[in-house]
Amino acid sequence: MTAFPEVNSILFEGPESRNPLAFRYYDADEMVEGKSMRDHLRFSVVYWHTFRGTGADPFGPGTALRPWEDGTDSVENAQNRARVAFEFIEKLGAPFYAFHDRDVAPEGATLAESNKNLDAVAKVLKEEQDRTGIQLLWGTANMFSNPRFMHGAATSPNSEAFAYAAGQVKHAMEVTHELGGQGYTFWGGREGYQNLWNTDMKRELDHLAKFLHMAVDHAKKIGFQGQFYIEPKPKEPTKHQYDSDAAACLNFLRQYDLIDHLKLNLETNHATLAGHTMQHELETAGAAGALGSVDANTGDMLLGWDTDQFPTDIYLTSQCMYSILKYGGLNPGGVNFDAKVRRESFEPIDLFYAHIGGMDAFARGLKIAAAMRADGKLEGLLSERYASWDDGLGAEIEAGKHTLESLSEVMLKQGDIAGNVSGRQEMLENLINTYI
Amino acid sequence: MTAFPEVNSILFEGPESRNPLAFRYYDADEMVEGKSMRDHLRFSVVYWHTFRGTGADPFGPGTALRPWEDGTDSVENAQNRARVAFEFIEKLGAPFYAFHDRDVAPEGATLAESNKNLDAVAKVLKEEQDRTGIQLLWGTANMFSNPRFMHGAATSPNSEAFAYAAGQVKHAMEVTHELGGQGYTFWGGREGYQNLWNTDMKRELDHLAKFLHMAVDHAKKIGFQGQFYIEPKPKEPTKHQYDSDAAACLNFLRQYDLIDHLKLNLETNHATLAGHTMQHELETAGAAGALGSVDANTGDMLLGWDTDQFPTDIYLTSQCMYSILKYGGLNPGGVNFDAKVRRESFEPIDLFYAHIGGMDAFARGLKIAAAMRADGKLEGLLSERYASWDDGLGAEIEAGKHTLESLSEVMLKQGDIAGNVSGRQEMLENLINTYI
Amino acid sequence: MTAFPEVNSILFEGPESRNPLAFRYYDADEMVEGKSMRDHLRFSVVYWHTFRGTGADPFGPGTALRPWEDGTDSVENAQNRARVAFEFIEKLGAPFYAFHDRDVAPEGATLAESNKNLDAVAKVLKEEQDRTGIQLLWGTANMFSNPRFMHGAATSPNSEAFAYAAGQVKHAMEVTHELGGQGYTFWGGREGYQNLWNTDMKRELDHLAKFLHMAVDHAKKIGFQGQFYIEPKPKEPTKHQYDSDAAACLNFLRQYDLIDHLKLNLETNHATLAGHTMQHELETAGAAGALGSVDANTGDMLLGWDTDQFPTDIYLTSQCMYSILKYGGLNPGGVNFDAKVRRESFEPIDLFYAHIGGMDAFARGLKIAAAMRADGKLEGLLSERYASWDDGLGAEIEAGKHTLESLSEVMLKQGDIAGNVSGRQEMLENLINTYI
Amino acid sequence: MTAFPEVNSILFEGPESRNPLAFRYYDADEMVEGKSMRDHLRFSVVYWHTFRGTGADPFGPGTALRPWEDGTDSVENAQNRARVAFEFIEKLGAPFYAFHDRDVAPEGATLAESNKNLDAVAKVLKEEQDRTGIQLLWGTANMFSNPRFMHGAATSPNSEAFAYAAGQVKHAMEVTHELGGQGYTFWGGREGYQNLWNTDMKRELDHLAKFLHMAVDHAKKIGFQGQFYIEPKPKEPTKHQYDSDAAACLNFLRQYDLIDHLKLNLETNHATLAGHTMQHELETAGAAGALGSVDANTGDMLLGWDTDQFPTDIYLTSQCMYSILKYGGLNPGGVNFDAKVRRESFEPIDLFYAHIGGMDAFARGLKIAAAMRADGKLEGLLSERYASWDDGLGAEIEAGKHTLESLSEVMLKQGDIAGNVSGRQEMLENLINTYI
Repeated sequence: MTAFPEVNSILFEGPESRNPLAFRYYDADEMVEGKSMRDHLRFSVVYWHTFRGTGADPFGPGTALRPWEDGTDSVENAQNRARVAFEFIEKLGAPFYAFHDRDVAPEGATLAESNKNLDAVAKVLKEEQDRTGIQLLWGTANMFSNPRFMHGAATSPNSEAFAYAAGQVKHAMEVTHELGGQGYTFWGGREGYQNLWNTDMKRELDHLAKFLHMAVDHAKKIGFQGQFYIEPKPKEPTKHQYDSDAAACLNFLRQYDLIDHLKLNLETNHATLAGHTMQHELETAGAAGALGSVDANTGDMLLGWDTDQFPTDIYLTSQCMYSILKYGGLNPGGVNFDAKVRRESFEPIDLFYAHIGGMDAFARGLKIAAAMRADGKLEGLLSERYASWDDGLGAEIEAGKHTLESLSEVMLKQGDIAGNVSGRQEMLENLINTYI
Repeated sequence: MTAFPEVNSILFEGPESRNPLAFRYYDADEMVEGKSMRDHLRFSVVYWHTFRGTGADPFGPGTALRPWEDGTDSVENAQNRARVAFEFIEKLGAPFYAFHDRDVAPEGATLAESNKNLDAVAKVLKEEQDRTGIQLLWGTANMFSNPRFMHGAATSPNSEAFAYAAGQVKHAMEVTHELGGQGYTFWGGREGYQNLWNTDMKRELDHLAKFLHMAVDHAKKIGFQGQFYIEPKPKEPTKHQYDSDAAACLNFLRQYDLIDHLKLNLETNHATLAGHTMQHELETAGAAGALGSVDANTGDMLLGWDTDQFPTDIYLTSQCMYSILKYGGLNPGGVNFDAKVRRESFEPIDLFYAHIGGMDAFARGLKIAAAMRADGKLEGLLSERYASWDDGLGAEIEAGKHTLESLSEVMLKQGDIAGNVSGRQEMLENLINTYI
Repeated sequence: MTAFPEVNSILFEGPESRNPLAFRYYDADEMVEGKSMRDHLRFSVVYWHTFRGTGADPFGPGTALRPWEDGTDSVENAQNRARVAFEFIEKLGAPFYAFHDRDVAPEGATLAESNKNLDAVAKVLKEEQDRTGIQLLWGTANMFSNPRFMHGAATSPNSEAFAYAAGQVKHAMEVTHELGGQGYTFWGGREGYQNLWNTDMKRELDHLAKFLHMAVDHAKKIGFQGQFYIEPKPKEPTKHQYDSDAAACLNFLRQYDLIDHLKLNLETNHATLAGHTMQHELETAGAAGALGSVDANTGDMLLGWDTDQFPTDIYLTSQCMYSILKYGGLNPGGVNFDAKVRRESFEPIDLFYAHIGGMDAFARGLKIAAAMRADGKLEGLLSERYASWDDGLGAEIEAGKHTLESLSEVMLKQGDIAGNVSGRQEMLENLINTYI
Repeated sequence: MTAFPEVNSILFEGPESRNPLAFRYYDADEMVEGKSMRDHLRFSVVYWHTFRGTGADPFGPGTALRPWEDGTDSVENAQNRARVAFEFIEKLGAPFYAFHDRDVAPEGATLAESNKNLDAVAKVLKEEQDRTGIQLLWGTANMFSNPRFMHGAATSPNSEAFAYAAGQVKHAMEVTHELGGQGYTFWGGREGYQNLWNTDMKRELDHLAKFLHMAVDHAKKIGFQGQFYIEPKPKEPTKHQYDSDAAACLNFLRQYDLIDHLKLNLETNHATLAGHTMQHELETAGAAGALGSVDANTGDMLLGWDTDQFPTDIYLTSQCMYSILKYGGLNPGGVNFDAKVRRESFEPIDLFYAHIGGMDAFARGLKIAAAMRADGKLEGLLSERYASWDDGLGAEIEAGKHTLESLSEVMLKQGDIAGNVSGRQEMLENLINTYI
């Protein structure tokens, strides 16, 4: 059986093709800056959107045709789906995948039953990993869909919800460990509030910190050495998510002494919903030594929710890859397509179009970013701009040799600064366009 | 001479009046929760908008009629303006004011000349303070208007701009100290970036931290014990300001070991431009022990820039005052009207309308918040909602007696949580309306 | 059997109560401006959110406890639900309701079966209407949920979808007519586009106009004299809805000669998503003689989707009622609560809290608006502001007696205008607050 | 004398260069779809930003170095500036320019004096036009900067402001006519409102319509046959501009019988501030036969005001040129750079960088759009998508042969639609990327 018979002959037609089902830029083995594109990009397919997405939206039910589904919520269907998923990922040529516990296996009536279901499907995942060489980028637990988590999980006013979440994370982390997962992600789900009148923010944040410390302790106990990530997002599903952007996450991690244990998993659509560019979030995390992994997608800048579209804008992918290369690449993180096909793109082949577009856009972004770096023009302009800090007064200030008083003396004598140089934004934009 | 002859007879007509030039709620001596409204609210008039605002906008020059201005940028005009300002504040009955160095005195050709100008006007300010009893809530330095700061002050790529800013802050802080200022505020001005291609964010933030440490050291040296504030704002004038919201500021302060030295000066319009409610920012600061002072204004939620309108929405002022009371009040901070009359409200009397509206709205918010607290209903509902954390499992978790494993055991045995209770948002909104 | 036993004793406790389940302002028989509040407000309960809403959101399934539901999609369950709905509306004291065809009855396998199902439930609706006196404000057809309408209904690139929609509207209109519905609403559903590369906008709009003309013709044929409405909304579920705001609807209606046949059904949350205040949309429609009916709700100004919250802000409801009174009231339209309880407000009693809050806020808004009108201050200020148009030059211009040339002559002689008067926005805001 | 000596040798270095001061795509004489790029693009330089922009923003005064300015507001300085402007435009190689009356000449103490000043500078403009062959794309009148227009011009509550505006437009239109201007633009300036409590929207719109009819009549009288344009913009400087987007303008033009006399002048940054893509606005205007001209720029999607940046995103320029080619090109309209250099780009050379970047991005967009059209893939996919309307049921509906009843009959017999085809958004996005 093959779930996607139509793609065998038409993929990888080569760089000249205008066939939208062919890679034009991504070639896993091609070397860029001394490393293969496979290793630079570490593409990952997400289980939730790609294998559990139905196309439902707030105005209508699902539309997706998924002929391999038998329509039940059984473990057997879940196991079969896992095999289809690996067929897809393999045909696509992506080296990684990522999942929530509840994506891969049905939730049972009790925690014990849910754990058992997850184990049963994890067995198939393991077989398929072994068969294909595809690896688990990271695992996570879905603690936002079930009504028990309506008020949050670790931040729920209901301490039992916290306890249940703890049990769920324990098992999800163990399964991730068994599958050789290279990371484990916390996304705040419903950790936030709908309104402040019924919320004790401080107490909820204290609980969240306690929860994460428990997770760190448990990882140590079971020998899981994968990277922990926290994923910023400002809105949805709560009115205000605690982990609203990179800075809010870093503040929380610093306040609660977690900064050494978690890095950030950044997503473009979450960045823009928070009012930042993805480049800003990458630089914020990078400058803090906390750039972990990337959820690759894009939003619609004129819509105010998480559209999770596949990224195809090469300005965006070039910016991402430039920052990623600058901070030493993503490893053990990766470029994880937290993206979904539109409700109207309901045929299985659309999954290929979507992922191929995203992979190609990132491959193209990688090449562009590498060209920008090879050439050195951008870097040169930057160095020149800050040259006044490299010696003289600037270097003295950086070295801690000055006070307000001593600097006042300097300027009282000099009267005013000698002048400024244009910021050259337009010139830089033109220069960027020469690489596109 | 009196600059505002028309207001003498019509102010303070009493609570029954529908005259928009009369206070209906604010009575400085009225006691609320055991403290006078004057001491709760600590109203402050800002020098920049109220005495230097012209009504200019990006599409046209100023419109404001200010008959006391002689049209020159002389020190004499500035001294005269200072006397008018105190007449206004006195008639209004506000106990505080706030300024930037360049609001009160003209910038000179050199730093020395600028300092001298500031000293000359500060002398009049001092006289007027002594005459009226009006006090300085805080001072600050304008390091964003002059072209020398086009690329930033402490974060400029030009080290001379940093040095000049240091000299300027030194003097502004000393003048603030001489005037008995109860605080000193840093607003990021142009500390941020226009684009990331020409910006070394990490290096700029390092410089900003160094600058603030110098300021802390200088305060110690001169014996200034006023509170330092940092003011969050996300956009304008740079594309991205470093101090973009409360969380970003706190993250920065923690990272650079400044958290013990600065509190936050929060502004409504800055909060909403950052995608937060003012209530969120107040709670974020309050929970972190960093709630310092408030810039009282409002934005237009459908416009995307800092409109700095006077606050008149009593939902907003009630939320502000509820959080402020909850965190122990503002002192040495205050409620500072960082707000300006519309370009079309160009007559001097409009300044009175505007401030009276804002003061009355805050006084009303104070009374509403006090009623909410006196009554205890809101607080009771909140306690009830978190009751599961007060004993049993919740209390054990808070006391650190649990791990993922022990909680997993609990839930494996129990199967699932016992259930949730409605969040009751609609009921709470109705309840809030009973106080309005 | 009663589905809501708990509310019998606690409603209508009177104006002094701080019980959030009691009306404090709404009294159906109270006279305002010579008409009862019942007739002014014409409150309507929506079937879709209130009886079909589950609390599902993009991140999780439904949460709502609705003990009267038997869990099937049968006609019997639908008929029983209809009886519960009328019990609710009756206890609430609302005189109207509104529905989509697919809210009240399950969709069948064929159009014929769907029609039959609708007829079967409509029979119960008729009985309940007769029993209670509650009337149908308007009906409509859901042509956006079923996957057949994924690309639109009247604007689908698939002509069969258009044909199906025509059949569906025919029946929904006829059922509305049989139930004595006072109106029929068109909401664009998926009439819009996801991207312009695959869209022929002109052809789609031509089809939409043809569809509406067919509906107008059919109404005439069957003798339906209810008011047709079109409902603006800018975003969701498509990237861009054709009926994006009042102006876009009016433009379309004018272009296709439909302006005499449809009025606007305006919704607050749709207004703000389009970047307008509700007051703006009401004035736009009112000035064009096209103000038909109101979908009463509110959005969250910091979230970018249709949150459909119950309206409780009395500034908003006062503005709405002021415009509505100004344009002669809503009739045959009404104040229709197109609003839903939060996902966390999952208990049946929350439906009461929500509607009571909304009704009370609108009743309060009505009283405030009436006070503003009775007093005449606002109206007087407005007249005064435009006085220069009432005689002299202004009156001549309005009378068509001038040309660019003649006015140029006037101003060449005069040199410049004599001056302006302050717009007094702050004073007006204070004045508004005296009525709140 | 030459104001820009530095650019002579470095422009036009040819397509291989990575010099940001060289054109890589724009070659005026290159033929695309049978017409030269010069004639396709009809580039125009704006006088206001490029020659009157200072870099002032709400937080600081101007920064721009413009060595040719003598610092006075004299007619002589204005005449000299005009010569510099033509030197710039000539070196750049743009065939058009555009101006407001008050950009080119100083406002006088009276209308008569202002007219005289304008005439004096227009004389130089005429000489320079004759010398260089550069033409006037369109003229307009600035009726928003002077305080007399604080409440609007044609929509002012002050009838004298209306009269003054009429006199001003008369002269601006006549000067435009004398200079052979190919069009005349109305931008609403302050035609809108700051708040609705002090506004009679209907009366103001009636006045605006009357004003435009006077202008149409005057054009006829003086024999001006240039195209009239109206320019949509949603926000700034008023809280709500009447001409808020293409649909609002079309609605107004239809309502007041002006639709045959004015076309739309669309701007990207105005489109996005109104919540639309530029492509949407172009299609809306094009479908209505009202696509007149384009103000080429871009906004910052994360900032909420009119940043008026130079356009460099080739996705944007490709979309623009695709729609423009589809609707037959712009003539007598053009691609007018209503864009300004950043405040930090204060050196004269930055004006070249900025315009070259914008021209090159549009030239590249033209080539991409032409390739999309030559190839026919996009058009073919579109035709295929709507094929069901080309014969059978669809064609019958378009031909007016159906009613709700007849279509109901068809679908009652058929039961349901046969099915849908994927919208293929992701495939289309990939396809678009093959042209970029």
